[in-house]
Amino acid sequence: MPDATSIRPLPADQIAHWDHEADVVIAGFGVAGASAAVAAAQAGADVLVLERTGGWGGAAAMAGGFIYMGGGTPLQKACGFEDTVENMKAFMKAALGPGTDEAKIDAYCEGSVDHYHWLVDECGVPFKESFWGEPGWEPPYDDGLQYTGGENAAPFNATIPAAPRGHVPQMSDKQSGGERGGGYMLMKPLVDTATALGVRAEYDVRAQTLVVDADGRVVGLVAKQYGKQVTFRARRGVVLATGSFAYNDTMLRSYAPKMVGRPAASIEEHDGRAIQMAQALGADLAHMDAAEVAFFCDPQLYIRGILVNGRGQRYINEDTYPGRVGQATLYENKNEAFLIIDEAAHDEAHTRPSATPFLRHKPKWVCETVEELEAEMGLPGGALQATVDVYNRHAANGEDPMFGKKAEWTKPIGSPVAAIDLRGMTGGFTLGGLRTSVDSEVVHVSGEPIPGLFAAGRCTSGVCAGGYASGASLGDGSFFGRRAGRSAAAAS
Amino acid sequence: MPDATSIRPLPADQIAHWDHEADVVIAGFGVAGASAAVAAAQAGADVLVLERTGGWGGAAAMAGGFIYMGGGTPLQKACGFEDTVENMKAFMKAALGPGTDEAKIDAYCEGSVDHYHWLVDECGVPFKESFWGEPGWEPPYDDGLQYTGGENAAPFNATIPAAPRGHVPQMSDKQSGGERGGGYMLMKPLVDTATALGVRAEYDVRAQTLVVDADGRVVGLVAKQYGKQVTFRARRGVVLATGSFAYNDTMLRSYAPKMVGRPAASIEEHDGRAIQMAQALGADLAHMDAAEVAFFCDPQLYIRGILVNGRGQRYINEDTYPGRVGQATLYENKNEAFLIIDEAAHDEAHTRPSATPFLRHKPKWVCETVEELEAEMGLPGGALQATVDVYNRHAANGEDPMFGKKAEWTKPIGSPVAAIDLRGMTGGFTLGGLRTSVDSEVVHVSGEPIPGLFAAGRCTSGVCAGGYASGASLGDGSFFGRRAGRSAAAAS
Repeated sequence: MPDATSIRPLPADQIAHWDHEADVVIAGFGVAGASAAVAAAQAGADVLVLERTGGWGGAAAMAGGFIYMGGGTPLQKACGFEDTVENMKAFMKAALGPGTDEAKIDAYCEGSVDHYHWLVDECGVPFKESFWGEPGWEPPYDDGLQYTGGENAAPFNATIPAAPRGHVPQMSDKQSGGERGGGYMLMKPLVDTATALGVRAEYDVRAQTLVVDADGRVVGLVAKQYGKQVTFRARRGVVLATGSFAYNDTMLRSYAPKMVGRPAASIEEHDGRAIQMAQALGADLAHMDAAEVAFFCDPQLYIRGILVNGRGQRYINEDTYPGRVGQATLYENKNEAFLIIDEAAHDEAHTRPSATPFLRHKPKWVCETVEELEAEMGLPGGALQATVDVYNRHAANGEDPMFGKKAEWTKPIGSPVAAIDLRGMTGGFTLGGLRTSVDSEVVHVSGEPIPGLFAAGRCTSGVCAGGYASGASLGDGSFFGRRAGRSAAAAS
Repeated sequence: MPDATSIRPLPADQIAHWDHEADVVIAGFGVAGASAAVAAAQAGADVLVLERTGGWGGAAAMAGGFIYMGGGTPLQKACGFEDTVENMKAFMKAALGPGTDEAKIDAYCEGSVDHYHWLVDECGVPFKESFWGEPGWEPPYDDGLQYTGGENAAPFNATIPAAPRGHVPQMSDKQSGGERGGGYMLMKPLVDTATALGVRAEYDVRAQTLVVDADGRVVGLVAKQYGKQVTFRARRGVVLATGSFAYNDTMLRSYAPKMVGRPAASIEEHDGRAIQMAQALGADLAHMDAAEVAFFCDPQLYIRGILVNGRGQRYINEDTYPGRVGQATLYENKNEAFLIIDEAAHDEAHTRPSATPFLRHKPKWVCETVEELEAEMGLPGGALQATVDVYNRHAANGEDPMFGKKAEWTKPIGSPVAAIDLRGMTGGFTLGGLRTSVDSEVVHVSGEPIPGLFAAGRCTSGVCAGGYASGASLGDGSFFGRRAGRSAAAAS
């Protein structure tokens, strides 16, 4: 058999023997792969999942576990929130752009309540009917619902009725400190459901190369297992679900150079190979520069002060989604941020519950006056003073006309005052990848689907074009993973 | 013959008849195509250029004409400037990144003096030995050298010895108002040289589809001419040089959504088709989000005031390259800018020579005090006042510790004071495209060159990964176009 270490597709007539065979062959057993497996099996297909590591889970099992859903899910209703499909669409198009795939977001929002039921009723994913309203990346306990995109903050709350859409599966042993987070509690039931439906899995199998027939249809793939080449025939379709390219430095440098050296919430297996395997077939790409950017500081802390850039200027409302802070810091402010906070606010933050105590950095400078502080920080004379003066002038009335921070968090900064050095405190994962249809077909640059090839999750460009909301990845990974499985099962 | 309206490559065995034949077939007769044609012909190849419009020139012929060269060119020396290859490399890697192709920039800088000689001595491109030192996008007269990347401004001038590298061919009839700009005066000699070397050209020919043999080698292309399909065999190689995707809204939306609706310094033929034709063969891409972003305001005007964003905050040193102002405005400040300028500075600007009188916008608001001005502009109370106070405090000493504007341009803002509305005043063209080697081979996602396929100019990712300097496009288009022609001529 020809060597399949190359990324180039192999002609089917060069495959002398198929070692394994299934209707649907799925590469990757994270959230997209597991969702595809369940959906394909539910559609009656014989399904085989290939996982590169020794076990299922992928990055999803290690994630906080948010799934972005809305439009009036039972959990939203139980927690007392109203939401509509239209409001969800409006928010996602505004916050996740510019350049969002409108058809994909429409399908995602219109199908969101159904998706919730599928997760809960058909796959057994548990959600606790309680809302967590404190600032933070994730609920510290087992609450099921949180704002995860800045829906209730400026600039979106002025025009789009807000609803929390971050649904997190209930953690069975997390009363702070449990090891099994929301991501695990999503993946476990998905994998159990797949297994109960007869889905087979092979581990330590690394997809290398797609196999195409004379008509250009994908009919299988070649992988490596324990150093040996193994062939997998897909009678109906192949689903690619192997994650992002956050750990491929060459691709990062070519497409998302600001992310070089700062992968986070990601796993080393995210090497972009599936993207390149499909590119070798002429697959189109989208939004390769987009990235989730986490900001490594506890929101409980920084919401009580002001964030300034390397020149002492404010640049965002501190009460928005932390991922927006991360993007604004990395993309618009040279990855430089300082938190300016007074002693009272600092002390108050430390009495609040939070899931992220390890993100509570210590002040680097503490002074009696802002004038002294800016001098110690090495900022231009008057720069930070001007920022604080303007902020305090309006904060005295609970107003923030510069950025629209809510009155609840807008209080004048007093004395003593500290600065916390948050330069370089960002990291994340890539959001760009294969262009796919709303039915999760991989799209050729001609605009036509590549027959037999489907994809979902972070090896695709999903609902996020530039912006991000927590839950969008497990959200579109599960939603379009399901569609990938269904489409592959129906292909012929 | 099969229909070649599809972007998918055609197998050579389906081409019953070749209508035309040459050693090297070049798609596009702009700067990259013309440079490739000359170089291929100089190497002894029989060359045919296919141009989609009715004449040669492309976007290049309409451009200002800067070619970014340095490392000690005769023109730099004649104008009294010292430059080194190392300084040029350091600047380009700092200013055109992050994520620049180091090998490409190294080759470009090391070959720059030779490239100058090639343009002048072998192709007859004229440069006048005079330097234009006023702020502005382009010299208003026929001077040959200008700073075009912010080399002599913050932040670069602090660490990298500055030299002007924007070389503009001498305009024969431009004593202000001449129609033939520097770009034309580059293209005319290049095309004349090509013609003298026996290069043939076919016009109204639109490349549609690449033709590949059984080994995957590109052996020709199919095009449309007057509505008919025409086949072109390339005995040695095909060179793609058809420009950017600035006019392909679908690609813009997928890759560079902030540029949707604002193409500039570009032509409608820039539809990205060559990129997609190569993608269909598995060609890799790079930096698809990158763009040149012009700022449509006369630098003579705005250098004498301060630029503030939609919140009244300064965000850049106004004496840097205008393209950096454009990128900072569009990418980092929501495409919102206002120029704050006092009457004296405003009047002074209007006595200065400038190439861009049409970019001298009128004040929208004029007031006696900044306090009144910020109120009329609808800015938060105190925001603009704070900005001007900090600026004036240091400008009194000719200093700008916030952004490092040079003392020459740093004067306190007095009264009366005006604001000019510059929101939305950006536009430009895309810089991303096919990944190519330093020898202008189109690179497959496997990392190997695609046999028989070469590319240069704005359908490729050149020396710019994110940043830009005027002259980089005609610069890398001509430099790597030349290499494309040479490589294609040598291919077999």
